[in-house]
Amino acid sequence: MGCSESDAATASNVLLSADLRGIDSHGVARLSGYVRLWQAGRINTKPQIKVIHETPSTAVVEGDRGLGLVVAPFAMAIAMQKAEAVGTGWVAVQNSNHFGIAAAHAMMALEHDMIGFAMTNASPLVAPTHSKERMLGTNPICACFPTENELPFVLDMATSAAANGKLEIAQRKGKDLPNDWVQTKDGLPSNDAHELKNGGSLLPLGGHKGYGLAAMVDIMSAVLSGANYGPWVPPFVAFLNPLENLPGNGIGHFVGAMRIDAFRPANEFKTHMDNWIKRFKESIPIDANQPVLIPGEIEYKMKAERLVNGIPLNENVVKDLRELGKTVGIEF
Amino acid sequence: MGCSESDAATASNVLLSADLRGIDSHGVARLSGYVRLWQAGRINTKPQIKVIHETPSTAVVEGDRGLGLVVAPFAMAIAMQKAEAVGTGWVAVQNSNHFGIAAAHAMMALEHDMIGFAMTNASPLVAPTHSKERMLGTNPICACFPTENELPFVLDMATSAAANGKLEIAQRKGKDLPNDWVQTKDGLPSNDAHELKNGGSLLPLGGHKGYGLAAMVDIMSAVLSGANYGPWVPPFVAFLNPLENLPGNGIGHFVGAMRIDAFRPANEFKTHMDNWIKRFKESIPIDANQPVLIPGEIEYKMKAERLVNGIPLNENVVKDLRELGKTVGIEF
Repeated sequence: MGCSESDAATASNVLLSADLRGIDSHGVARLSGYVRLWQAGRINTKPQIKVIHETPSTAVVEGDRGLGLVVAPFAMAIAMQKAEAVGTGWVAVQNSNHFGIAAAHAMMALEHDMIGFAMTNASPLVAPTHSKERMLGTNPICACFPTENELPFVLDMATSAAANGKLEIAQRKGKDLPNDWVQTKDGLPSNDAHELKNGGSLLPLGGHKGYGLAAMVDIMSAVLSGANYGPWVPPFVAFLNPLENLPGNGIGHFVGAMRIDAFRPANEFKTHMDNWIKRFKESIPIDANQPVLIPGEIEYKMKAERLVNGIPLNENVVKDLRELGKTVGIEF
Repeated sequence: MGCSESDAATASNVLLSADLRGIDSHGVARLSGYVRLWQAGRINTKPQIKVIHETPSTAVVEGDRGLGLVVAPFAMAIAMQKAEAVGTGWVAVQNSNHFGIAAAHAMMALEHDMIGFAMTNASPLVAPTHSKERMLGTNPICACFPTENELPFVLDMATSAAANGKLEIAQRKGKDLPNDWVQTKDGLPSNDAHELKNGGSLLPLGGHKGYGLAAMVDIMSAVLSGANYGPWVPPFVAFLNPLENLPGNGIGHFVGAMRIDAFRPANEFKTHMDNWIKRFKESIPIDANQPVLIPGEIEYKMKAERLVNGIPLNENVVKDLRELGKTVGIEF
């Protein structure tokens, strides 16, 4: 696409981190989607990413229509520099694009004994409570905390009841959706995994509270940075054009880092994190065969397994990658 | 109880702000609960609240077993001073007690053109996903954003499917609970509003994601500050004693403030917030008589109404306050 070697490596690492962690919907399966956005002229592969405003603990980054996969790590690096200097760093990003999995960016903090945060807004698919209109993205929140000997605590969750990837899995398996994941275009309950294609919408996590959380992510990512918000967030799919008279620039992210020892000695914190995790894993299970899990645990185990055995690719993804290879003149 | 005039005024204001906003479960209805904690020797009415560690953008506050109603505003004031100086301020609090509604503290930021955050852990009532053991509190998160002409956006939500107050309302009305609010002591589904008395537990918001959010609040409030976490959080009810061999001190909170103009000019942000709110209120409703609401809207309208017409008190609360008056020698 014309990215620099270094940007291409950064973007590939973010995509691969999703595949390694088992978040197959956000890995190489999306590569052709990014390429189509570039073909549609909506991604700048040689962006001049820059800080347009800052204080000792904050910055606003202008992504210059770059890949979010590249813009977000740039922003996170600044957040971490600021955390190094004054305890915490918080960076709002405008004029970016889809940034892959939030965890890839937030987790940059872990090896520096920092707590990492990342969130982003996204193409409108979710209806606010009482509405049948798509107004919010699946707007994920990631928060991750370092540990001493246990696996780090990594919460990375869409603020919708289910992310799009879960619907795709149900579609492939021909299964009905659980209640409260989607509604019809008229706002009626539905269990149809294809409801979005019929004009339906995703539902917020647990009702009105999920709507509130998604709204918070939208405001922090976009109203604070100068990006587009709500229904104006440009769609990820290249065949849909952005709306007219946009209130901001591109998609918005918000990332942050807090140095642990800005609060208490890092080893003390990490020892208590281990204790927290051990105690929660010991909490009495309903079914002895299904113990309590710690956020991030499944993904760490998946990564360890896939680093040994490789990443299984869905047949359609392989076909898609072959096609993509032809388009850009790379043998696959 | 022996609080200073100034602390008594601060605490009363926090309780009254709950009643005014219509959060009746967290207002004067709880006054006797705080008094009983003091009678049990668990609240220090003359605390030496102090900062025990700090950086330019962070601090840890030691609450000296004071009322959370007093400790949290102290911490929030420090967060705002730090935001004034370096853009943002983040304060973790240990050795505190129940702090009332989170919104009372976070909203201190609004009139200073800052974004406010507040969260706290609380007595264990919520079971993590797959468990039947009470390990987490209803651990609320509040985030509030200033506006120009619209009412501010104030999200203040428990990370459980329902807060305890909602169960109490169902109990009073003799109504069944919706699905997914509580489970039995064996981890089975239940709709019984009295299930907690039978050893059951509250369920996290929307399943495992709510567990993740409640855990995040617990870690930020307590593992970061040096307070107690998980099942070790001291119970609010005075008839239950704290566990032995506690890993920290008291209850933990986490509060924060971000100066808007550390990101973009405050008037620009607030104008876009107005635009955000207007657009969301206009989003197509499922039922024309039930328009989309903005987080905090109901509470602002309730406050306006109650400032005119007064705060209706439940009969049992009045009885309880009369008894309390006798105990401490105040005519009611």
